[in-house]
Amino acid sequence: MRILLYRNDGIVEPWARDFEAALPEAETVPWREGQPVERCDYAVIWAPTPALLEQLAQVKAIFLMGAGVDALLKFGDALPEVPIVRLGDAGMAEQMVEYVVHAVLRYFRRFDEYERQARDGIWEALTPHVKSEFTVGVLGLGKLGVPVLRALRQLGFPVRGWSRTPKDLPGVECYAGMETLDAFLSGTRVLVSLLPLTPETNNLLDRAHLSRLPAGAYLINVARGAQVAEPDLLALIRAGHIAGVTLDVFRNEPLPAPHPFWNEPRITITPHVSALTLREDAVRQIVHKIGLLERGETVADVVDRTRGY
Amino acid sequence: MRILLYRNDGIVEPWARDFEAALPEAETVPWREGQPVERCDYAVIWAPTPALLEQLAQVKAIFLMGAGVDALLKFGDALPEVPIVRLGDAGMAEQMVEYVVHAVLRYFRRFDEYERQARDGIWEALTPHVKSEFTVGVLGLGKLGVPVLRALRQLGFPVRGWSRTPKDLPGVECYAGMETLDAFLSGTRVLVSLLPLTPETNNLLDRAHLSRLPAGAYLINVARGAQVAEPDLLALIRAGHIAGVTLDVFRNEPLPAPHPFWNEPRITITPHVSALTLREDAVRQIVHKIGLLERGETVADVVDRTRGY
Repeated sequence: MRILLYRNDGIVEPWARDFEAALPEAETVPWREGQPVERCDYAVIWAPTPALLEQLAQVKAIFLMGAGVDALLKFGDALPEVPIVRLGDAGMAEQMVEYVVHAVLRYFRRFDEYERQARDGIWEALTPHVKSEFTVGVLGLGKLGVPVLRALRQLGFPVRGWSRTPKDLPGVECYAGMETLDAFLSGTRVLVSLLPLTPETNNLLDRAHLSRLPAGAYLINVARGAQVAEPDLLALIRAGHIAGVTLDVFRNEPLPAPHPFWNEPRITITPHVSALTLREDAVRQIVHKIGLLERGETVADVVDRTRGY
Repeated sequence: MRILLYRNDGIVEPWARDFEAALPEAETVPWREGQPVERCDYAVIWAPTPALLEQLAQVKAIFLMGAGVDALLKFGDALPEVPIVRLGDAGMAEQMVEYVVHAVLRYFRRFDEYERQARDGIWEALTPHVKSEFTVGVLGLGKLGVPVLRALRQLGFPVRGWSRTPKDLPGVECYAGMETLDAFLSGTRVLVSLLPLTPETNNLLDRAHLSRLPAGAYLINVARGAQVAEPDLLALIRAGHIAGVTLDVFRNEPLPAPHPFWNEPRITITPHVSALTLREDAVRQIVHKIGLLERGETVADVVDRTRGY
């Protein structure tokens, strides 16, 4: 069995090593721009170029090294007609839980403000926020949103969730569909986005929707930067309507040097690290799915091109 | 029934209101320095003066408005021979879980470093810490230590606990007694103190003990400042042995303006806010215990003066 490997960062050697260890009958075939694409059974890739994609109709399936598929689906009709399988979890849910729990606790316990006080040598207890009024609302109730909500609920936060199609989660107030979004937002003190990027979610967090959040609300975006209308967000922060924002993702990454987000003290910036692909977990998962496909069985996480994720 | 009320900050009116609402047969008697101490059935106090204490032999029990008893036990033989009852939980465990979970996640996910990078406009992913090597060790396995360990374990951290007397907690590697302290410390990446302040724990975290932690360790002190030998800690931070410290408590509070901790970027300072007494919970608990005492029953959380907590 031959497995083509490609990553836009060029770092494929550790993946090759892991695949050959986990699947001894496999031969890995690294591909680089400008080379011919050799005949392979499967392709395991991240952020491919058009030149690579047009040669992949030959493989039995394309596996992605991450969970997000927007960078691939933008190719539209140029995508080969073979199953595209995204990464299921691979340790990402646990990392996402850590990231969001930290950010929510930081705002709830006002640690960001204590840090600013300490820098100025100020010893002063601040009035605590009230937990029953600190509802966390998660957009997107998939493999990341559900464990994040569960962890926040265990910490005693009131929680609500919003998804495209109706969901039923114990202890979570669930909303579904665009027509419920305003009601969902109006009772959300901390908004967390874990939505996939699709034409519907592009610019979803614009002035109209962000204004529905109560005054003094917080935003945590760990999904895709293009979901946020950046100038609208900045205006609402400056107007005092939004009290604090934690962003791990941006419309353009790396966030450009002159971007106004860098200088806004109420915006916390991390460089797209909320949930890194854990290579060993990812390889184990893909090897398992190759086994299923070879036996003619179905696999989870096949991308639905119409739905967009 | 008459209940004497005293707090060193003078703010007793809200307590009086809550007690009279919860126990309509009670009359509250606020006391202020310089006044005579009227005859009362119970005293509910925080940080009393010697003048008050010497008049409290008349009450049936003294209830404290907090969990720490060191500020009271320092009076030694001057303490009246009546039961002293400290606050059981009153929402403090939940707050302590929030505080410690936030601090541990901040170090594990390197958010302190990302914040410093962002201030300098640097977009750069840092090598993640490995969770299996990020053992959190909690000193003190009482009403605060146990829920803190449980929450950290649920987040996937390896956890260990140390206490004076042997304890057995599911999923926690337990150590007991001074003779095991070095072994406990040598495998602890993040040390959390939730010990009471006693003659044994005063200055417990000195150069000898803190040096047992592995290089690159972190310290979170949410117990009492006097447990830390402050110059020793500072020396170990500056030598690079301790990578980061979060302190909510200090030998002298408020932390004096010229203290070197203020200017050490690897020390995060909060003004003794990790777990505030939630007045409504505290009043409910004390009223319940007064009911038990009035019926001649025993109550929990009576201070053991020999043990020191």
